[in-house]
Amino acid sequence: MTIRLTDSLGTTGPLADVFSDRSLLAAMLQFEVGLARAQARLGIIPADAAEHIAAAEPDEFDSAAIALAAPSSGTMAIAFLEQLTAMVERRDAASAGYVHWGATSQDATDTAMVLLLARVRALLQADHKRMLAALRSLSNRYAASTMIGRTLLQPATPVTFGLKAAAWYAACARGWARVEASFDEALVLEFGGASGTLAALGGRGLDVSAELGRELGLPVPDAPWHAHRDRLAALVAACGIYTGTLGKIATDIALLMQREVGEVSEPGGGSSSMPQKRNPAGCAVVLAAATRVPALVAAFLSGMVQQHERGLGGGQAELPTVAALLQATGAALAALAGTVEALQVDAARMAANLKATRGTVLAERAVLLLTRALGRDAARALVSGAALQSAQTGRTLSAALGDDPRVAAAVTADELSSLDHPDAYLGVAETLRRRLLADA
Amino acid sequence: MTIRLTDSLGTTGPLADVFSDRSLLAAMLQFEVGLARAQARLGIIPADAAEHIAAAEPDEFDSAAIALAAPSSGTMAIAFLEQLTAMVERRDAASAGYVHWGATSQDATDTAMVLLLARVRALLQADHKRMLAALRSLSNRYAASTMIGRTLLQPATPVTFGLKAAAWYAACARGWARVEASFDEALVLEFGGASGTLAALGGRGLDVSAELGRELGLPVPDAPWHAHRDRLAALVAACGIYTGTLGKIATDIALLMQREVGEVSEPGGGSSSMPQKRNPAGCAVVLAAATRVPALVAAFLSGMVQQHERGLGGGQAELPTVAALLQATGAALAALAGTVEALQVDAARMAANLKATRGTVLAERAVLLLTRALGRDAARALVSGAALQSAQTGRTLSAALGDDPRVAAAVTADELSSLDHPDAYLGVAETLRRRLLADA
Amino acid sequence: MTIRLTDSLGTTGPLADVFSDRSLLAAMLQFEVGLARAQARLGIIPADAAEHIAAAEPDEFDSAAIALAAPSSGTMAIAFLEQLTAMVERRDAASAGYVHWGATSQDATDTAMVLLLARVRALLQADHKRMLAALRSLSNRYAASTMIGRTLLQPATPVTFGLKAAAWYAACARGWARVEASFDEALVLEFGGASGTLAALGGRGLDVSAELGRELGLPVPDAPWHAHRDRLAALVAACGIYTGTLGKIATDIALLMQREVGEVSEPGGGSSSMPQKRNPAGCAVVLAAATRVPALVAAFLSGMVQQHERGLGGGQAELPTVAALLQATGAALAALAGTVEALQVDAARMAANLKATRGTVLAERAVLLLTRALGRDAARALVSGAALQSAQTGRTLSAALGDDPRVAAAVTADELSSLDHPDAYLGVAETLRRRLLADA
Amino acid sequence: MTIRLTDSLGTTGPLADVFSDRSLLAAMLQFEVGLARAQARLGIIPADAAEHIAAAEPDEFDSAAIALAAPSSGTMAIAFLEQLTAMVERRDAASAGYVHWGATSQDATDTAMVLLLARVRALLQADHKRMLAALRSLSNRYAASTMIGRTLLQPATPVTFGLKAAAWYAACARGWARVEASFDEALVLEFGGASGTLAALGGRGLDVSAELGRELGLPVPDAPWHAHRDRLAALVAACGIYTGTLGKIATDIALLMQREVGEVSEPGGGSSSMPQKRNPAGCAVVLAAATRVPALVAAFLSGMVQQHERGLGGGQAELPTVAALLQATGAALAALAGTVEALQVDAARMAANLKATRGTVLAERAVLLLTRALGRDAARALVSGAALQSAQTGRTLSAALGDDPRVAAAVTADELSSLDHPDAYLGVAETLRRRLLADA
Repeated sequence: MTIRLTDSLGTTGPLADVFSDRSLLAAMLQFEVGLARAQARLGIIPADAAEHIAAAEPDEFDSAAIALAAPSSGTMAIAFLEQLTAMVERRDAASAGYVHWGATSQDATDTAMVLLLARVRALLQADHKRMLAALRSLSNRYAASTMIGRTLLQPATPVTFGLKAAAWYAACARGWARVEASFDEALVLEFGGASGTLAALGGRGLDVSAELGRELGLPVPDAPWHAHRDRLAALVAACGIYTGTLGKIATDIALLMQREVGEVSEPGGGSSSMPQKRNPAGCAVVLAAATRVPALVAAFLSGMVQQHERGLGGGQAELPTVAALLQATGAALAALAGTVEALQVDAARMAANLKATRGTVLAERAVLLLTRALGRDAARALVSGAALQSAQTGRTLSAALGDDPRVAAAVTADELSSLDHPDAYLGVAETLRRRLLADA
Repeated sequence: MTIRLTDSLGTTGPLADVFSDRSLLAAMLQFEVGLARAQARLGIIPADAAEHIAAAEPDEFDSAAIALAAPSSGTMAIAFLEQLTAMVERRDAASAGYVHWGATSQDATDTAMVLLLARVRALLQADHKRMLAALRSLSNRYAASTMIGRTLLQPATPVTFGLKAAAWYAACARGWARVEASFDEALVLEFGGASGTLAALGGRGLDVSAELGRELGLPVPDAPWHAHRDRLAALVAACGIYTGTLGKIATDIALLMQREVGEVSEPGGGSSSMPQKRNPAGCAVVLAAATRVPALVAAFLSGMVQQHERGLGGGQAELPTVAALLQATGAALAALAGTVEALQVDAARMAANLKATRGTVLAERAVLLLTRALGRDAARALVSGAALQSAQTGRTLSAALGDDPRVAAAVTADELSSLDHPDAYLGVAETLRRRLLADA
Repeated sequence: MTIRLTDSLGTTGPLADVFSDRSLLAAMLQFEVGLARAQARLGIIPADAAEHIAAAEPDEFDSAAIALAAPSSGTMAIAFLEQLTAMVERRDAASAGYVHWGATSQDATDTAMVLLLARVRALLQADHKRMLAALRSLSNRYAASTMIGRTLLQPATPVTFGLKAAAWYAACARGWARVEASFDEALVLEFGGASGTLAALGGRGLDVSAELGRELGLPVPDAPWHAHRDRLAALVAACGIYTGTLGKIATDIALLMQREVGEVSEPGGGSSSMPQKRNPAGCAVVLAAATRVPALVAAFLSGMVQQHERGLGGGQAELPTVAALLQATGAALAALAGTVEALQVDAARMAANLKATRGTVLAERAVLLLTRALGRDAARALVSGAALQSAQTGRTLSAALGDDPRVAAAVTADELSSLDHPDAYLGVAETLRRRLLADA
Repeated sequence: MTIRLTDSLGTTGPLADVFSDRSLLAAMLQFEVGLARAQARLGIIPADAAEHIAAAEPDEFDSAAIALAAPSSGTMAIAFLEQLTAMVERRDAASAGYVHWGATSQDATDTAMVLLLARVRALLQADHKRMLAALRSLSNRYAASTMIGRTLLQPATPVTFGLKAAAWYAACARGWARVEASFDEALVLEFGGASGTLAALGGRGLDVSAELGRELGLPVPDAPWHAHRDRLAALVAACGIYTGTLGKIATDIALLMQREVGEVSEPGGGSSSMPQKRNPAGCAVVLAAATRVPALVAAFLSGMVQQHERGLGGGQAELPTVAALLQATGAALAALAGTVEALQVDAARMAANLKATRGTVLAERAVLLLTRALGRDAARALVSGAALQSAQTGRTLSAALGDDPRVAAAVTADELSSLDHPDAYLGVAETLRRRLLADA
């Protein structure tokens, strides 16, 4: 288990494992072994050199020494390769010279990062899928649960919880589709040699690329991308956008879970001092991610300005940013999936809260009903007055309006009493709900 | 002309016009007129009400009054609608009540923003296209111009300027493809009414949507997106990524234009004090955008956490962010297109700078040549020594190596003299260059 | 009036005026006139040249032409100086040569920005002061108004509204103290000539600096700061921190104003469709600023990496960032000052909401009372059970606890009934409140 | 050794230790032990309870279990306290109930973070001091080393390396002064109990605060700051500003170290493929930090908007942000201190590069000399022509000018030949240099 306490609200166990030292060393080694095997197969290096290189194990590395040495060369690859070369040398001195043949440090570190990201993808996908299923189920179950719509944190015309959940669902589906597409784009081999021309391999560079891609299960892009980071940037941004949507959903849930609202609740977590408390802990994790991730996207984008064939500064800033961002995204996804799966919905409370508005949330409808007869300004003034009276006296909007003879003249009794039925003022909510669910 | 001085390095004339008061008012009016016409056609409001609404002109609005009033209601739509209603009233009192029928403020402001973005798209596209053409042309013209590859700002193995330009080209092509795709996604109608259910229109909401979409030439999405901003976020992020690539190219150009390097130059601008100076003004504009835009992306993503049916804070933060970001992106694109179109390339200087390295940029090759005979450690040590000697004495690397009898024993004279020919150490540069150009 | 609609929620009238073209041109002109006068006084340029330069008026400039020309030289100063020189030439050809004598573009643009910032300072200060007064008054008025404390958006032990307002007050006071200190640091003259050595003025450079500083009312720093932007960064960051505090307060207010909470309300703004609505428009403006400003701080910090004597990219990114950030800060300050001045507080509702928790917010106290007798685990379990029972049955916590014989054995009747008196469980709230108010 | 590979370019060994699990657990334990001792001393809890609590050791905790449990309660404190309580219980069951008496989770986690930051402060300070000493020494040693001033990456009028280093020095001194002041402000006790009123301690809350502050060596602020994070924000921002300055210096060094410039070099690091290479590895570390840190500042500022008495999301985002930011700042400081201490300066190359401009960097002076006689426009045109001729022919500016009879008529031979002496065109460089060094 490799989660750090400082990261404990910003990752999950499996994601922390992906970015652990051992995992990163294994991925770098996978690159070097794959390279040696590819080159041996093509007759570029001796077959037994590849064997000896492939005999190295991740656990043989002294990761602390590599980490400490990294700043003095601006990359962890140098010390990694020194250790790998020494390992191979101990097995077979002649093979040591073929370690990392024709490659450059960044080929190893970039491809290793890509290999880790492929594992991240699978982890995120699993949580995404269960969240999507839970949201669809919530939407269907509460399709007819009318509740207060809220805009700018004030009551607006009614919606259904089914529609709300469907909008969450569709946004998640769109969010993940972008993440998937950017994974497809970003998960490609990096192999270019010192300046990206594979010059050390003479005319065989692209043969080696192709063979190495096969070894690692990675597509070979049109060209190395040492200083062109837009594919990674697209992945990072897609995660940022999806996390924004997760944050929106968590905010909604946390607000609905306030004691005074009480319309949904997540199982949540306890307090160290207050036994009555149930904190929206899942939402806290999501919102912490939504606080951090936009800035991490910016850090990546700022680092894209990389000079010439390989950059100074921007490139070296990427790994911690990518690691933090993917883990935060994954933590948010896992937390929200758990939250929506276990979400308790109190449809009766939704109805009660709606009823407590005494029909004032249908003031818009009242204005529309009265506008034809009275003109908009007069209609608005009349309804505003009635809404105010309702707030002060506790009467319903329809009752307050009913006192006014102009109202009686303008609308039928049925129309007036419709103001007491917010369930009948839902417009196309159900159609939209179905469109949103089908859209996934 | 509506550029402000404070924005003068962060926009262009046409883009500033898109985001001008008049343009924004016209777009909001276009929404209201489109809505009235759609509703009249469907028999929801009287036909002459639509006529009277459509008679309003952008110039009739008092934009200053709207701007000053906006903070007191949290949206510019309220004051805009008051003015519009008053205009219609002056023409026909009865029609005034049908202004904005069934819509909400954000329907107008979001759709207006979308209409502006459609105009931005065309402006960006034009500059993108001419940049792409210029880059392709540069790449083809200098396909054989060998130059120093530079990594971490130090000389590495050689590349060609043609390859460098092709890599710029492909990154721009990818960048624009993402921007286009996100425009396709984001340029959709917003129309949902107070809480996104179109309740005010009874069962006719989606008919009006469809008709209004036709009026405005905008696709109708599955549902209103008042509080789900991911489609806009994707556009904002795609612009951010593309601007990152533009910044990378501008950095390369500005570095190559340094007096001591002198390999390319842009026409640039003068100095207020120094007549000999030619400043890379185009690159300055691009790099200013690349400095600002990542943070603007973050601002947008931070604002995605919008509560319930319409949010408080995040939504109100969008317009200045979107306006600044799209204009900065467009300014960078225009500046870089102009820069690469007029770029002067000094291939002779590239060759001279390469020659001045005295073959040390081929040290990698020397090591590879010697490794089979001597093992890597010995080969590296020997070549390092020779490179150092070259730096101190001014001799070429091949000459410095040639003195060592171990070298003579290990490599042929041809192999040794190949170190004097960086043009022959280009690996698959030309193949990559062609792949990159074809990839667009 | 110079507010743009796109900025209308992100500035105020007076702040928009400060950053208007006319204001910026006037400030640049003030620099050039001050420079000429200082140099004339020191006998460096002819006295009548200074007169002719000083005769220029801001309105003589064609700001649109300057804005359009700026990208081609990377600064608006070049075209500004061309126009100024032409104006002087029309008055007196011989004087035209003395315009901008010994100065560089950035001397003019930086000093102009500083002059604008001095005006911004006064505007912010006025709003800060009235907010501080309003907060102090709120705190004193509601010193004894007990309300639910809320942590992680769930009820916690009680606080007073007076304490809450005092904490807001103290944070604002600290925030402004940092802003003031950074204004003191940042509002200094920029005058260095081409490379910051004032070489064009021979040995007289510092004499001119001193005289120019006196002319403009600006302190002269130890040295020019063309590429060292830390003083401005400190101002930008201080505004960012203060805006964060403003956002915290606005969030609190908007949450307390939710219909279901109803403890405070701001006058707010109306809706275009719903007459019953009162939107927290002031909070919306503040929260929009709090969404944008952190990223603008990041943009400034990213731009600090400026090369050599004057940078490429970072410097050119500053003005729009500074203008947007200071205006957003000022808009937030103005909006929140207005909001707190007009804030309506419903102390009865605070009491009612607290009462509605049925004493469960004092569960902590119950545990502490019982721990001595029962041990913490047993105490916690017992209180949790009682709190749950209270939630299900509507009984008070004390009643639910009172049923248990272990409770009767462990606490006195007075202790038990203390759980019905949240006003008595306020710890040192009043002392803290006074400390916070005195701390300003 | 606790550096992770993913962080290896973004921290140092000692800083990684500060933020290690063990260190964080020790700090949280220090809070709990300090609290127990303070309360025992005041007679609030039994003396032997404090003893039993104080017997716990950091190594007794299962940090992995705490990390895994954290997301389910939104804080690592809950699981930490459960483990601590269990430990105490094993020693003395009765004492277990007094663990964390009257405190809340955030009291422990915030104070622990403050305790870690106090250790960070000392580490940063040591590197800052040696950097300052090295910069002062560089400035003094090269006070008279004239070099090309460079603006917008093009040659401008000359400066001295001594001046450049002095400007670096003064910016670092200012940067650190802000960091120190913000440490002074931020390093204060957090102790407020559930809602910040210390209600659980009756009237004794402030006595316990005072005693606990003494125990931990931390000042007690006016009030708890659970949801008011401005003091920490000020520290975070000050680090961001200082890192911006470090990035500026590293950029200058890396640019001066380009092979074609060659004026300074850092010892740097090697390449995995190219033995001739010396990479500016120290600068890479600094610039990676300068890429990441602005966004981390933004993440912190975004998180300041914390609701009510303790927030949801913003607060939970802080620890990873603070940890990453302080470590990146410290890594940059350590790397740059090492870089400037070992910086090799090639004053001869500075002189040679200056000479290679053939006097054109003094074109400004030539214009000033000629303006009195010819007027500025004519002077500028004449000098521009001569500069162009110089560039094309390789003649010096003075020679090119000397051909023109108007020049001979306007300036003396001495004045003309002064254009060949950039060392004499340094204005007040040396005075400024001394002012900058004294300013620290």
